[in-house]
Amino acid sequence: MTVKTHTPKQGMPNAAMKYQPYPQISIPDRTWPSKTITKAPIWCSVDLRDGNQSLVNPMGHDRKARMFQLLLDMNFKEIEIGFPSASQTDFDFARWCVEEGNVPDDVSLQVLVQCRPELITRTFEALEGATRPIIHFYNSTSELQRRVVFAKDVAGIKQIATDAAKMIMDMAAETGGDYRFEYSPESFTGTELEVALEICNAVTEIVRPTADNKLIMNLPSTVEMATPNIYADQIEWMCRNLDNRENLIISLHPHNDRGTGIAATELGLMAGADRVEGTLFGNGERTGNVDVVTLALNMYTQGVDPKLDCSDIERIKAVYEYSNEMVIPERHPYVGELVYTAFSGSHQDAINKGMKAIKTANKPLWEVPYLPIDPQDVGRTYEAIIRINSQSGKGGIAYILQQDHGINLPRNLQVEFREDIQRITDEEGVELPSKRIYERFLERYVTQPDARLRFVDHHTYPDTTRKGVRIVSAEITDRGETKMIEGQGTGPIDGFIHALSVYTGLQMSVVDYSEHSLQQGSNAAAIAYVEIEYPGGKLFGVGINTNIVTASLEAIISAANRVLEETGR
Amino acid sequence: MTVKTHTPKQGMPNAAMKYQPYPQISIPDRTWPSKTITKAPIWCSVDLRDGNQSLVNPMGHDRKARMFQLLLDMNFKEIEIGFPSASQTDFDFARWCVEEGNVPDDVSLQVLVQCRPELITRTFEALEGATRPIIHFYNSTSELQRRVVFAKDVAGIKQIATDAAKMIMDMAAETGGDYRFEYSPESFTGTELEVALEICNAVTEIVRPTADNKLIMNLPSTVEMATPNIYADQIEWMCRNLDNRENLIISLHPHNDRGTGIAATELGLMAGADRVEGTLFGNGERTGNVDVVTLALNMYTQGVDPKLDCSDIERIKAVYEYSNEMVIPERHPYVGELVYTAFSGSHQDAINKGMKAIKTANKPLWEVPYLPIDPQDVGRTYEAIIRINSQSGKGGIAYILQQDHGINLPRNLQVEFREDIQRITDEEGVELPSKRIYERFLERYVTQPDARLRFVDHHTYPDTTRKGVRIVSAEITDRGETKMIEGQGTGPIDGFIHALSVYTGLQMSVVDYSEHSLQQGSNAAAIAYVEIEYPGGKLFGVGINTNIVTASLEAIISAANRVLEETGR
Repeated sequence: MTVKTHTPKQGMPNAAMKYQPYPQISIPDRTWPSKTITKAPIWCSVDLRDGNQSLVNPMGHDRKARMFQLLLDMNFKEIEIGFPSASQTDFDFARWCVEEGNVPDDVSLQVLVQCRPELITRTFEALEGATRPIIHFYNSTSELQRRVVFAKDVAGIKQIATDAAKMIMDMAAETGGDYRFEYSPESFTGTELEVALEICNAVTEIVRPTADNKLIMNLPSTVEMATPNIYADQIEWMCRNLDNRENLIISLHPHNDRGTGIAATELGLMAGADRVEGTLFGNGERTGNVDVVTLALNMYTQGVDPKLDCSDIERIKAVYEYSNEMVIPERHPYVGELVYTAFSGSHQDAINKGMKAIKTANKPLWEVPYLPIDPQDVGRTYEAIIRINSQSGKGGIAYILQQDHGINLPRNLQVEFREDIQRITDEEGVELPSKRIYERFLERYVTQPDARLRFVDHHTYPDTTRKGVRIVSAEITDRGETKMIEGQGTGPIDGFIHALSVYTGLQMSVVDYSEHSLQQGSNAAAIAYVEIEYPGGKLFGVGINTNIVTASLEAIISAANRVLEETGR
Repeated sequence: MTVKTHTPKQGMPNAAMKYQPYPQISIPDRTWPSKTITKAPIWCSVDLRDGNQSLVNPMGHDRKARMFQLLLDMNFKEIEIGFPSASQTDFDFARWCVEEGNVPDDVSLQVLVQCRPELITRTFEALEGATRPIIHFYNSTSELQRRVVFAKDVAGIKQIATDAAKMIMDMAAETGGDYRFEYSPESFTGTELEVALEICNAVTEIVRPTADNKLIMNLPSTVEMATPNIYADQIEWMCRNLDNRENLIISLHPHNDRGTGIAATELGLMAGADRVEGTLFGNGERTGNVDVVTLALNMYTQGVDPKLDCSDIERIKAVYEYSNEMVIPERHPYVGELVYTAFSGSHQDAINKGMKAIKTANKPLWEVPYLPIDPQDVGRTYEAIIRINSQSGKGGIAYILQQDHGINLPRNLQVEFREDIQRITDEEGVELPSKRIYERFLERYVTQPDARLRFVDHHTYPDTTRKGVRIVSAEITDRGETKMIEGQGTGPIDGFIHALSVYTGLQMSVVDYSEHSLQQGSNAAAIAYVEIEYPGGKLFGVGINTNIVTASLEAIISAANRVLEETGR
């Protein structure tokens, strides 16, 4: 491929004509930047409503019921189950939840309704018999929607909200049911703060919330329109200025149009909010709602119990994918296929060392470089933490052989074998799975199918003429022919290397030796690593045998074969 | 499906044992929360390095070259092309970029290297002949890595950095090339600020940057470990305290482990950073690097020219998917398949009105509810803005018929037809494509395959006995049999409805009428909508004909057929 001569445009210069910057919030004494999140908010799942309405194919009953069960199991105490006045499917599902949903007493079903009389009536029908359900009513308050959608002034828009609040309070009183209430000035982030405040206060005045039945005041970032600090400023401003704050639950309902929905929520909580509406893994209109699983696990990694059970993230993923008919991408925080995986050599090396340090540290604290959470805390395994491609290093290869096959390579052997593996990954250009790395290791160091020499048996006995010296007498084959060789040393290893040096005419000596069991039970094999020096350099041989002496002699034969190959014999 | 009795765990209570909260930064006089982003940073793409190293199958030459061409075309002036000392593939690609890459003079190639002598030597070889390339050297400085990976104290870690800086400056001087330099205290977010400052200052002292050759000081969020305001605090603190600030370019290199990489970058820019390293759509290790396309378009929607050309996002997506062998999810900001789509009824209604308002506004400002950017600015069309499922409303259906078929339904007909469509979507539970909505409209209102009556022809002539009254004489068929009918009125419409009332014995009258051309050239058809009142209610008929009178009479026949069906005749 040839790179074309380059004549780029210089960016996208028409921006200033077409778009205006979002205005700053005047709150120079803001306190949220010095706050931290120290406890979980009240969580409300809107998977079955905001999530569902954004699906190409909305859920039918079975997909909804499966999601509903999961949400209960995850410990959600507030679940928005639909917009029953707007579709028969949603109405039927609300009835099913009430009648057959087995809803625990401490869980509130929530339903959405617009501020319109006929819809409100139908909503009460949908909830008949539910325990403390939440009636969530809303109308759009933004400057743009007032102008182009409703053609009403602030007073007109406020009246839509207060008329609905009155009707809902009246109907709730008539039915005698034990209802909770939520109001959203929809498109809050497109609404002037003073206008949002005025409308919210007017609703509060009608609902008359108490300490026992607080009004949920939901301030949605219906469209994310600014950096997340602005949303936090807005929330802090509203928290300061709303009437009857002590009897309000300030709720966030962020979307993700700028990819900062999670941040906006976190900063909004620091700014004083009490509650979060969102969806599993951020499904929802357009770019989605805020992802409550990531929010919860972000808290968890700071030592805060999120009060949501995300310990089986694979099940959450499976239900998400079944019910929403959507696939979670590989890089999605905490759940994506690749998010616990390191391919880079230096990362692998650090993870390898961190995992070893944790094993010896004898304290529960999780401290592993490049892994902000222990994968096992969310039901993931250590299997895929390190994967090998052309960007990988010795640490990664060592980790895989250790983790998957119980093989603890000495450091110099890691370096040597890494070069071999990298030659393969550079040539093939693809990932090498653990199995192929293991097979390559066996072929190169243990089985050596094309090698000249094979170890068969050995005897050692004292040299009667010299004290402390033992004779090693061994049977080997050389290109299939049986040979008897003999050497001397203090033990079998140096005796055998001596015998081989004599036999091959190459001066070889052992510079490093180690051996460990392969940890597979009582008649476990041992693996021996021997580094040998020869006139052309140093290299390793490896032997595996249930007899520890045989393993080490096989390692020497392995090294000798490689020396013969290197030196062209 | 039955919901199981519910026995949830209460969250994930072991958090506090295993994880510690990230410490606060002491900077009570922080200024960034009151800042805004008013100009684009210097962009550096790390797609070919950080992005590439995290792929299951790293790019071969062709995939790299295709990506490289795209990055040039997008107007990147700094492109990190690899880690040439660590892999032959990367070395070869660096040589290709230098020799055949057709790199414009104002673009700097950048390569990464660890602080190790043998790697630095190889790095200079890879860059020979490049114009003002950037040597990017790094070492890990975090408390955790100092302890478990390197077993060195701060002085030892600092020396790794300064030794490398010295060697690089010496080699650069020897080669006589015109190099630029970048240093990263890797795992900066895991490093105590004072330690990072000390090491960075030590490097600056050796590199001796000038106004003509500034040192890029890159402060990576190698692992995202805290809420994004903390990163901003860290950046503001470093900007205040670094030596020789005026000759440094402060660079951000955020990752996305907590899903807040974009936010951290935006707040970091507000805190004083000058430059951003990231990847297209956020590919990179684990959860990925920060997504530079989203960052750029976030700026664009605030009226700031991002200086990156994202106007053909479909091409960027195509190259991304080809080169990385990864798929961009449906909800990815600005680019995902569904991010310009509204399924919800109220959203559709508002978008429909907003789009109409824009057409009549005669100013360039983009103001459409629920669409923070004009899809056409990034090369997307309006086609998929509204899609219809069981959550959809009349606005959406009206928009689709208008947008795709040139049909402007009167408001009451929108309401009527929406009920019909929702019955279908509730029953079928899947999305209805535009074509099926159109076909259903034609079947129900225009072609009416099972209807009793058909219009054939008509004549009108003055009633000689009454001034201003005309007689309408029409030929129709009723279940295939030809019938002549006659009525009176001021014009053909009321004359014909009178004739039909007499013929059918049903009292029908016209309450609303409208007609428009279908905008397909000079012999365009007209479409007529007639709302009829009859003893049981009101309903619409529709006719399409090149003759505007015939179209309206066909609309009346259409309505009459529906009245006959409704009343069981």
